[in-house]
Amino acid sequence: MTGGPLASWIDGVPAATLGLADRGLHYGDGLFETIACVRGRPRLLPLHLQRLAAGCERLGFEPPPAGELAAEVRRAAAASDRSIVKVIVTRGDAVARGYGACGAEITRRIVLRYAWPEEEAPGAPVAVRLGTLRLAESPHLAGLKHLNRLEQVLARAEWRDPAIAESLHFSASGALVSGTASNVFLARDGGLLTPSLECCGVAGVMRRAVIEHARRQGIAVEAARLGPEDLRVAAEVFLTSARIGIRSVSVLDGRPLPPPRLAGELYEGLRAALEDPAE
Amino acid sequence: MTGGPLASWIDGVPAATLGLADRGLHYGDGLFETIACVRGRPRLLPLHLQRLAAGCERLGFEPPPAGELAAEVRRAAAASDRSIVKVIVTRGDAVARGYGACGAEITRRIVLRYAWPEEEAPGAPVAVRLGTLRLAESPHLAGLKHLNRLEQVLARAEWRDPAIAESLHFSASGALVSGTASNVFLARDGGLLTPSLECCGVAGVMRRAVIEHARRQGIAVEAARLGPEDLRVAAEVFLTSARIGIRSVSVLDGRPLPPPRLAGELYEGLRAALEDPAE
Repeated sequence: MTGGPLASWIDGVPAATLGLADRGLHYGDGLFETIACVRGRPRLLPLHLQRLAAGCERLGFEPPPAGELAAEVRRAAAASDRSIVKVIVTRGDAVARGYGACGAEITRRIVLRYAWPEEEAPGAPVAVRLGTLRLAESPHLAGLKHLNRLEQVLARAEWRDPAIAESLHFSASGALVSGTASNVFLARDGGLLTPSLECCGVAGVMRRAVIEHARRQGIAVEAARLGPEDLRVAAEVFLTSARIGIRSVSVLDGRPLPPPRLAGELYEGLRAALEDPAE
Repeated sequence: MTGGPLASWIDGVPAATLGLADRGLHYGDGLFETIACVRGRPRLLPLHLQRLAAGCERLGFEPPPAGELAAEVRRAAAASDRSIVKVIVTRGDAVARGYGACGAEITRRIVLRYAWPEEEAPGAPVAVRLGTLRLAESPHLAGLKHLNRLEQVLARAEWRDPAIAESLHFSASGALVSGTASNVFLARDGGLLTPSLECCGVAGVMRRAVIEHARRQGIAVEAARLGPEDLRVAAEVFLTSARIGIRSVSVLDGRPLPPPRLAGELYEGLRAALEDPAE
């Protein structure tokens, strides 16, 4: 087991280390994207780049040049059939000490290529627990895939049972938010519900792809405030993330769920985008 | 203006760069201390080291060796009369990809020496505004000086007027928390009030030094839930931080405050510790 990148680049140049003045290290002042690459190509790349640019805008710094970054991600992806390419973008080196940015910082992009994680049963439905950590609510940071991820680190430390794939968490005020590293959808009355992300959580690119595809298929999707009761009465629960795609939940907090229906249909509709990404 | 460190060490060895697998960069999975050094010596060093060790315990990783770290901070401090020595401690390199730590990570310590910031009027009372960003509430992270500081970055971006020294912020539920980089005390009826930090904020070492000193002097100090009304009726407001020590607020959100009394007394009592730290 190794957590290190197989290869890495900073601003397009091969690099294995980062200067110690970077605000990403000091404050988590940046964003990231975890891009699943299959057949040597990044999937959902335009959605990743759009989210990244929107995040930079919200944090108030210049996004990285999209064309160059896209080319770098594609080159990294081309090195093997399957890989994970992680992009970290920071506000760059501190120009002055302290939290305040002065506007003269130069955005830095870090591209890291990782091996595709080994999975025992790819695509198989998973068992999920309900986590106890309540996620803090912050409209300023909600939706962003920013580098402040201590809550997810602590949430992931709540269990070690390898039979449990993910943990669902509620916000401080009791709204369902997401898994530690995935978004969540519930099926009810033939439509889909997913937590709105106005106060908490990450607006996943796979979440967006699923919402847009479902709506094209005439399936109603509502982003709403959801509670434990919504989970309890859901006909079907599934998780999404850039890496796992769509993953049905077979057991929720020890309770077996009915066989999935919508998750499979949605996966079929998105199969081409996920398994054979565009050049 | 330069924000870069004058010198830096990783695990005791001079180093200017960090490997790209560090969980501090990826997740902000770590802590920091900002240590003011005067007369070539770090002040309040035992309090900094205690807070750091307690923070590592809460995040679930081994603290750095206290004796070695203390020696490194002292050596860094000895290079000039005044400096800021920042210590960043991370959970170390990722052993596996993803939020989960496996327990085999090796804590990393980074020591950075910075120039003491230039100040126009050291020690003079300051003007403070009320910030609009509401700080997210998270009992899991409250009190820790962790590396997830995007809220402080965004809070510090709310104003550019150099005549304003600091901004006070409330929590999502309306409790006074702190400045962007300082703790806050209010004087009332001869005693002191300061926000409790159960849901938000950083338990500053200078805050602790002030509380302990005040109590030794027979001054009552209560850590409590405080609201805007408490600020409005306070006879005196002052800020504390490792760097600024104790700083009276002369103007709060445009309203002049009466001349300080307790802040000066407390400073006098702590003068030796602040201006002539122990070897």
